[in-house]
Amino acid sequence: MQSFNPPIRTLMGPGPSDIHPRVLSAMARPTIGHLDPQFVGMMDEIKEMLKYAFQTENALTMPISAPGSAGMEACFVNLVEPGDKVIVCINGVFGMRMQENIERFGGEAIVVTDEWGTAVTPSKVEAACKAHPDAKIVAFVHAETSTGALSDAKTICKIAQDNDCLTIVDAVTSLGGVELKVDEWGIDAIYSGTQKCLSCVPGLSPISFNEKALDKVRNRSTKVPSWFLDLNLVMGYWGKGAKRAYHHTAPVNSLYALHESLVMLQEEGLEAAHARHAAAHEQLKAGLTEMGMEFVVAADQRLPQLNSVIIPDGVDDAAIRGTLLNDYNLEIGAGLGALAGKVWRIGLMGDSARKEKVLFCLAALKAVLGK
Amino acid sequence: MQSFNPPIRTLMGPGPSDIHPRVLSAMARPTIGHLDPQFVGMMDEIKEMLKYAFQTENALTMPISAPGSAGMEACFVNLVEPGDKVIVCINGVFGMRMQENIERFGGEAIVVTDEWGTAVTPSKVEAACKAHPDAKIVAFVHAETSTGALSDAKTICKIAQDNDCLTIVDAVTSLGGVELKVDEWGIDAIYSGTQKCLSCVPGLSPISFNEKALDKVRNRSTKVPSWFLDLNLVMGYWGKGAKRAYHHTAPVNSLYALHESLVMLQEEGLEAAHARHAAAHEQLKAGLTEMGMEFVVAADQRLPQLNSVIIPDGVDDAAIRGTLLNDYNLEIGAGLGALAGKVWRIGLMGDSARKEKVLFCLAALKAVLGK
Repeated sequence: MQSFNPPIRTLMGPGPSDIHPRVLSAMARPTIGHLDPQFVGMMDEIKEMLKYAFQTENALTMPISAPGSAGMEACFVNLVEPGDKVIVCINGVFGMRMQENIERFGGEAIVVTDEWGTAVTPSKVEAACKAHPDAKIVAFVHAETSTGALSDAKTICKIAQDNDCLTIVDAVTSLGGVELKVDEWGIDAIYSGTQKCLSCVPGLSPISFNEKALDKVRNRSTKVPSWFLDLNLVMGYWGKGAKRAYHHTAPVNSLYALHESLVMLQEEGLEAAHARHAAAHEQLKAGLTEMGMEFVVAADQRLPQLNSVIIPDGVDDAAIRGTLLNDYNLEIGAGLGALAGKVWRIGLMGDSARKEKVLFCLAALKAVLGK
Repeated sequence: MQSFNPPIRTLMGPGPSDIHPRVLSAMARPTIGHLDPQFVGMMDEIKEMLKYAFQTENALTMPISAPGSAGMEACFVNLVEPGDKVIVCINGVFGMRMQENIERFGGEAIVVTDEWGTAVTPSKVEAACKAHPDAKIVAFVHAETSTGALSDAKTICKIAQDNDCLTIVDAVTSLGGVELKVDEWGIDAIYSGTQKCLSCVPGLSPISFNEKALDKVRNRSTKVPSWFLDLNLVMGYWGKGAKRAYHHTAPVNSLYALHESLVMLQEEGLEAAHARHAAAHEQLKAGLTEMGMEFVVAADQRLPQLNSVIIPDGVDDAAIRGTLLNDYNLEIGAGLGALAGKVWRIGLMGDSARKEKVLFCLAALKAVLGK
């Protein structure tokens, strides 16, 4: 066996996105202990910078030491107790995964369905709340990575609050790419991933819980059916204060990378980052429209950072993606679930949301499609 | 906020261990997609090299995308069903954590206790098997990181087999450091960590399940109460064959690091790696004995790679460790659980098991202890 030297790709699929060399080189810095005071200081800085990214003052704002799927699980395994009714909005793959989580932890899922490629319809959520006054949680995906639809998190959270429900929000693809205001919108529990608009390596899942959500965790009548993700224990390690209880060995070098990507987000500023994602989307849209290609999602519900476009008639999905990858070192995403084989997903996330990359992507697509 | 530049430490605690520059620089290679054929090829190589490290032909041999605690949880959440009786051997912190896992997943833990700092007593395991003929699993820690005791995995597995029990083995600290033969010893399910004797970054947990263990997973009467760790799903991503089902986004760059550390293990050879750990231990032991220091664990049960030594009378534990860290950039470990404040844990794991580092560690200890 030989060392692995990856090809140099341009990553314009649904994630991971391209990673800035500053972040990659931060990863390669010498490992220190996970209880080293210097490391603990860095953890505190990560927490502060994540609070900025999430726009929250929540004390429990930290990265779970595992990918976004584990962040999702951290929310559901801590907040759902056996028998709890949870209203879950499904308009793509990740809403379905939420339902899986709810049911595995003994909850009862009340499903609110919307078409794949459309946003969650707030009035349907309201109707479900009224029909199930004993529901305890409303769960939905802010930015559906499988379709590219952006839901109105602010309105849905308001409905949940008015009906005494906690909210669990999937912000895997939205964090850093579009407006997201955890405190102002009253989001109770949220999770994200590092490999999308934060342009960090995959493998970490930033989460944030407010006091209302933590009260539910603290007052559970059953133990959390996970040791690794039990926030009562995780808090002892990531919590404020000098004494850090050992819980697990943190992924030290991946956290160096997250720290650096968050420093870069602060330097750029959240609003500037959002504007950059929006501008890249406009540029991509103009080019794709010129090529006669169509979007799956209506303009007013469309995510700038995840563009689902309909594969033109007669075009071989896998062959084209293969040519882009092999001849151009360009990765775009396949369709997922109900959209498999029907769409491509072009990601403009983090460091991939740059005009030079959009130009290249459009030029490569034109070439392989013979436009 | 500024970029984080860690100090250059020598890591001789209970892990993470020092990481070779080849592994660190592998981490910084450009990220590619987790479904990229080149990445999938690298995953296959990792599986092959892990089979070598574990000395197994198990098809399900792969790294869980999270730290060792999640690897432990992957074993228990998949194999323990509500009501299952599990014999669990406790002779340190990690046996206790196993018990926590069993109980959280609805199992009944039959506890076999040994003194902290001693190995698991096989005859006690046998007695527990006889007393509980309906027990389904025997779980134990091969190398107790909290004490430095090495248990006789071969004998305990034989007892389990003779009593129709599956085995779950914690090899977090043993893999790569001491003899470990998964197939020959008949271990059914095993988990490890990357940040110990493999000298890779923390954050991944290699596991291996044989067919007998997988049969139990496939024939569960209840769904695995975890989506992230359900091996029925994980196998679809890491399994053999061209079609890889998307499960979660793998920690691409951490896996580059694991690949490189496993290439280095192959280059050195398992037996040479074990011999290097043993030699470093002999060297450390000679130096410590000369200084009048004593080991917690008896010589015939002692792990070479994790040395618990008794803190001399009148010595301030935290102050000495602080001086070593701040003045010498040397990390040694504190005691854990029942041994907190009473011992230091000196790790000789992976790239920390080198004579130049042992010499340095001994010299620094002499200086700070005024010996």
